Amino acid sequence: MSELRWDPLKSNWVIITKGRGRRPQDFLQRRHKPEMTACPFCTGNEGKTPPEIYAHRPNDSQANQPGWQVRVIPNKFPALHIEGGLENNAEGLYDRMNGIGAHEVVIEHPDHDKAMADLTVEELSEVLKAYRTRMLDLRKDSRFRYIFAFKNFGVEASANVPHSHSQLIAVPLIPPLVATELATCREHFQRKERCLICDLLDQERQTRDRVVHDDGNFLVYAPFASSFPFELMVVPLEHSHDFTLQTDQQLLLLADTLRETLGRLRASLRDPPFSFILHSAPPMHLRWGRPDYWASLPSDYHWHIEIAPKLTNVAGFEWGTGFHMNPTPPEEAAEFLRNAEPTAIL
Amino acid sequence: MSELRWDPLKSNWVIITKGRGRRPQDFLQRRHKPEMTACPFCTGNEGKTPPEIYAHRPNDSQANQPGWQVRVIPNKFPALHIEGGLENNAEGLYDRMNGIGAHEVVIEHPDHDKAMADLTVEELSEVLKAYRTRMLDLRKDSRFRYIFAFKNFGVEASANVPHSHSQLIAVPLIPPLVATELATCREHFQRKERCLICDLLDQERQTRDRVVHDDGNFLVYAPFASSFPFELMVVPLEHSHDFTLQTDQQLLLLADTLRETLGRLRASLRDPPFSFILHSAPPMHLRWGRPDYWASLPSDYHWHIEIAPKLTNVAGFEWGTGFHMNPTPPEEAAEFLRNAEPTAIL
Repeated sequence: MSELRWDPLKSNWVIITKGRGRRPQDFLQRRHKPEMTACPFCTGNEGKTPPEIYAHRPNDSQANQPGWQVRVIPNKFPALHIEGGLENNAEGLYDRMNGIGAHEVVIEHPDHDKAMADLTVEELSEVLKAYRTRMLDLRKDSRFRYIFAFKNFGVEASANVPHSHSQLIAVPLIPPLVATELATCREHFQRKERCLICDLLDQERQTRDRVVHDDGNFLVYAPFASSFPFELMVVPLEHSHDFTLQTDQQLLLLADTLRETLGRLRASLRDPPFSFILHSAPPMHLRWGRPDYWASLPSDYHWHIEIAPKLTNVAGFEWGTGFHMNPTPPEEAAEFLRNAEPTAIL
Repeated sequence: MSELRWDPLKSNWVIITKGRGRRPQDFLQRRHKPEMTACPFCTGNEGKTPPEIYAHRPNDSQANQPGWQVRVIPNKFPALHIEGGLENNAEGLYDRMNGIGAHEVVIEHPDHDKAMADLTVEELSEVLKAYRTRMLDLRKDSRFRYIFAFKNFGVEASANVPHSHSQLIAVPLIPPLVATELATCREHFQRKERCLICDLLDQERQTRDRVVHDDGNFLVYAPFASSFPFELMVVPLEHSHDFTLQTDQQLLLLADTLRETLGRLRASLRDPPFSFILHSAPPMHLRWGRPDYWASLPSDYHWHIEIAPKLTNVAGFEWGTGFHMNPTPPEEAAEFLRNAEPTAIL
């Protein structure tokens, strides 16, 4: 029997089509890996990219030369442009503004053949530090209302360059789904003086049906109303609204959790294409309400990473209704992932 | 320069990435057509499907036997099930209800090799009449809050059976995107005593940049803030909130417009995969406010068909933010489609 499930964070219903239940094997498919000669992201090819904005490299190595471990560059084909004003204006019933923003690429490792799941915990934590540094820097630009890191892995998830990389985008508006999460969290806090996501973590840790990983620092779980098969939330157990406030030590612990989680997905689903996105409180949020925000953490948002393997096609139904149809109940997905050996590949 | 555009109907911003502008040629790709032996939708194979719910067939032909022109059957693998109660209940912070609904298949033509764009105007109008009849019948079930017809064409748009068909779904909730359209239309009407979609039609007919087809009965245009390349709206110029109130004559005119529009897409984009969905006022809507709804048409919704070719991949960015990124400005898409010869295939 199919089931409709309500997501209190995303304020949406999802259809879990249990009768068509799908196990990891049903999603195994041949993966395409695009061939690429002279990859611009490889070490030695630094001259083929725009000059770097940030790099983690030894102090004696030169910018835009080999020796780096993580490198951040402007996207050569940016979706949003850094120069200019918004020139927000109306056109009859419509509105338009210039696509002002930042679009950066985080090259995660010099080695072309290493996927994110292959990085060591230390290497992965340097990628997370690059996110933190760039997010803090982009916040200085008052035109940007939201800054986020995300990653597409695999051609099916639109990663056109196979060399492992993620992206940073700054946009002049709070994205709709983030706005919804901010609103549901704020409403919950105003009513109950508790963080909605902290409450969700408590419930997930009590039932444990959907928990994939719990090391006392981070919880990884399949959301009750997952829109996609094997969708996951990675959430710090300690309340924090803002990813950029994480210490180096916390980013090491996150790297450890993320590495294990990506390893479990890879082992269960044979290196599936996936996307992940970092949801953190917007810079504006920090300025709302309280002058002491750096000292006391706002309680009405809780940063997290959302991971979605790309296993099913989104078609007319989802696009035309806003409903998602998910053939794998999250309890089953969590069980498969718990039982997976993070290092094995099927 | 990229541009952000506001859609007053969907209450959402879209990013038009003009700098990456893509012409129809950029989207041409090899289409997959699944091989199928013994297609259950073909005439002669009626016994391989569940018994028909509706058919357009000569009076002297028997149900579930050849002779039909359009045939509606229950989906053999339904996403939602017709039997049972909702059993709506809470589970801590979450809610769930049974996936009650109807899921029917409209087989559009007995011939396996005819696509919707190949049907004659009369044949296509019989498909639209099947939608109308089934929608009216499903409305009698008070558990259903919304009933809609949609179509996926092509494997890339998740049509697993190649024989031309569309689907009817009844759901126990108003879908989120429909709820948004109902809300934006209602708010506009309450403020201005005009229909939002009628106002949009007026603006589109004045500027004409985004108009693809205007025969005085139906307007086909690329929405100002199209989420996808070559997205189209097909809207009756005469205000009507409810598709099921359309006369046979109006459905013939719609069939003519739809046929031409699908022909233009086919000619421009070499038989692209696409989805379309019919948005009409929900049955509930008819009961809101006014007792005389059958006589006087509510002014705060306006039925229409939305068509989206499936040319790009939706990836991490869209999924994690709710923003869509569209590389083809709708003015360019409309120009390509206006210049296409509806019957030619590239």
